[in-house]
Amino acid sequence: MEKKIVLLPGDGIGPEVMDAAKRVLDAIAVQWNHSFSFESHDIGGIAVDNHNTPLPDQTINACKQADAVLLGAVGGPKWDQLPSHLRPEKGLLGIRKALDLFANLRPVKGFEKLLHASPLKEEVINGSDLLIVRELTGGLYFGTPSERTDNGNAVVDTLTYTKREIERIVDKAFQSAQLRRKHLTSVDKANVLESSKLWREIVEEKKASYPDVTVEHVLVDAAAMKLITNPSQFDVIVTENMFGDILSDEASVLTGSLGMLPSASLSESGVGLYEPAHGSAPDIAGLGIANPIAMILSTALMLRYSLQLEEEAKMIEAAVISIVDQGYHTADLQVQNGTKVNTLELTDLIVNYI
Amino acid sequence: MEKKIVLLPGDGIGPEVMDAAKRVLDAIAVQWNHSFSFESHDIGGIAVDNHNTPLPDQTINACKQADAVLLGAVGGPKWDQLPSHLRPEKGLLGIRKALDLFANLRPVKGFEKLLHASPLKEEVINGSDLLIVRELTGGLYFGTPSERTDNGNAVVDTLTYTKREIERIVDKAFQSAQLRRKHLTSVDKANVLESSKLWREIVEEKKASYPDVTVEHVLVDAAAMKLITNPSQFDVIVTENMFGDILSDEASVLTGSLGMLPSASLSESGVGLYEPAHGSAPDIAGLGIANPIAMILSTALMLRYSLQLEEEAKMIEAAVISIVDQGYHTADLQVQNGTKVNTLELTDLIVNYI
Ligand SMILES: CC(C)[C@H](C(=O)O)[C@@H](O)C(=O)O
Ligand SMILES: CC(C)[C@H](C(=O)O)[C@@H](O)C(=O)O
Repeated sequence: MEKKIVLLPGDGIGPEVMDAAKRVLDAIAVQWNHSFSFESHDIGGIAVDNHNTPLPDQTINACKQADAVLLGAVGGPKWDQLPSHLRPEKGLLGIRKALDLFANLRPVKGFEKLLHASPLKEEVINGSDLLIVRELTGGLYFGTPSERTDNGNAVVDTLTYTKREIERIVDKAFQSAQLRRKHLTSVDKANVLESSKLWREIVEEKKASYPDVTVEHVLVDAAAMKLITNPSQFDVIVTENMFGDILSDEASVLTGSLGMLPSASLSESGVGLYEPAHGSAPDIAGLGIANPIAMILSTALMLRYSLQLEEEAKMIEAAVISIVDQGYHTADLQVQNGTKVNTLELTDLIVNYI
Repeated sequence: MEKKIVLLPGDGIGPEVMDAAKRVLDAIAVQWNHSFSFESHDIGGIAVDNHNTPLPDQTINACKQADAVLLGAVGGPKWDQLPSHLRPEKGLLGIRKALDLFANLRPVKGFEKLLHASPLKEEVINGSDLLIVRELTGGLYFGTPSERTDNGNAVVDTLTYTKREIERIVDKAFQSAQLRRKHLTSVDKANVLESSKLWREIVEEKKASYPDVTVEHVLVDAAAMKLITNPSQFDVIVTENMFGDILSDEASVLTGSLGMLPSASLSESGVGLYEPAHGSAPDIAGLGIANPIAMILSTALMLRYSLQLEEEAKMIEAAVISIVDQGYHTADLQVQNGTKVNTLELTDLIVNYI
């Protein structure tokens, strides 16, 4: 099987964790006799430095022709003062829109060995295993107008959705729930927003097509509470772009190991993009100590969702669990009687397991 | 001192906790020789039942003529299926707008005796004491258009702010910080929203007028994480309406005793409205077991902010702390070696202390 993978290492620790991911994929290719070709392109701050734009056309074109895209991280203090159209995150928003990556999937599940690092009490976090399905190309992020009005004395942003946009993300969430524990929590603010009312109607309509999935509606403010007081009540959570941004970051710290969480951003039929849930961590960039696990687990999601290589995906996940269970960890984590290793060493351990 | 207080008991446990609050105020009046006159009006579900609208004109008018307003809670399953304009929460949104209650202040501070009920580990929640200042009459809640478009195939909500609206809430937050630990965290999504960019500019402009306050900007997704991983880093948090809705509910469960949290909603020069952070709890309504403390502490905020009776406010707060420290609690809480009491008994204890 020959597959074209575009790598967008980006900024900060992005290139380091991307190297780790590539080595893991090389090991998978050898083991299963696949052929993965890799092509690197710039995005974010590095793209601003090299091409004076956070999202060069050649990056977009390469991604469109790829079977899948891996992204490291974007951003850092170096680019923080640039005007808005040159900010690294504009590259991220741009590639989401250009590839129509409407469905952002963020699984949140702790590692037993690391749960002690959770800010939550053990009895609260225990057993949590949830998936946030966030709409990624609509809502306040892309609505127009988004501008100053009244001679600069006022401002407007616009939250828009079409039925079609809501339907496809809701379908994706129902389908994700069918592959898991078959419970879907739809999060909205239907007591205030017209867009949330339409959202809720569509979830209600779609229910009939997924009779094996139980559905509940939770208001976004209540969801923000329940994630903390009882995270294990959730299986799949589906919500619009801005609510999803807030809730998925909130959820990502519950298990105490943000450096271990992957994410997948999927389009309807085209390419998918896979990236760690964490950021570019400029403070430790270049030191070779970054935790590569979120990036490596993102490659597992890529194998599963974009390349339909479930067995290979499972192998990576098993390798990670085994290494973590043996007490190996990078400097971002503390493990009693564990062995602290650097990015390269941890990657070696995973590669050897495979 | 003669003061006119309007009571809006509302639905569910609202009337029970309002009775408790009134008895506490009566005790304060006797002790300090004040005269408080009380007038009750309908809002929410009970107003729909009695007047076919969740916010009758006489309620609005009475509030406008009052020195302060106390609100219990609104809503319940009885009114959940009504069309949107008859929903109890429309009464709440309507009274906020009618009285121009732009500043919602929600202090979050645990009681030592109750911190064991926090979902967070002791070392994480310890020392937390924060105040959320939420803009309450702008943004997505009130922007137009908010409607179906494209023959019902799409939908739009609108997030608008004027400079003036942002300035007054930011001023209120700086002033609140000056009375506390002098640190202000402004929460926005300035990497995506034009409204957040203006928000951030205004905070930066205002800084010079409050040189004793340190200021930081945090993105809303990061704020949702930090509230959990390190809540004690915050003093005052200021943010727009929707972000404030989510973050203040998130923050309200951190200490493990939501039934103890008051809130104040203030206008520029007119009347203020005070209500518990919790809801109408229809499941225990009428049983006489509701926790009245959030409502009673809301009366303390009323004495402080609307009636300038600081000493009396402090007395109520001291009474509550003393009763809680002695182990008295209602059924919503568990206290080792504590004494479980009902609404009436707890109120008696507080009244006797005063
Ligand atoms: C960088 C930012 C624009 C982005 C977002 O808000 O979507 C990030 O927070 C994320 O969640 O991927
Ligand atoms: C009932 C609802 C409209 C309201 C809000 O969202 O403002 C509530 O959640 C609150 O925070 O007071």
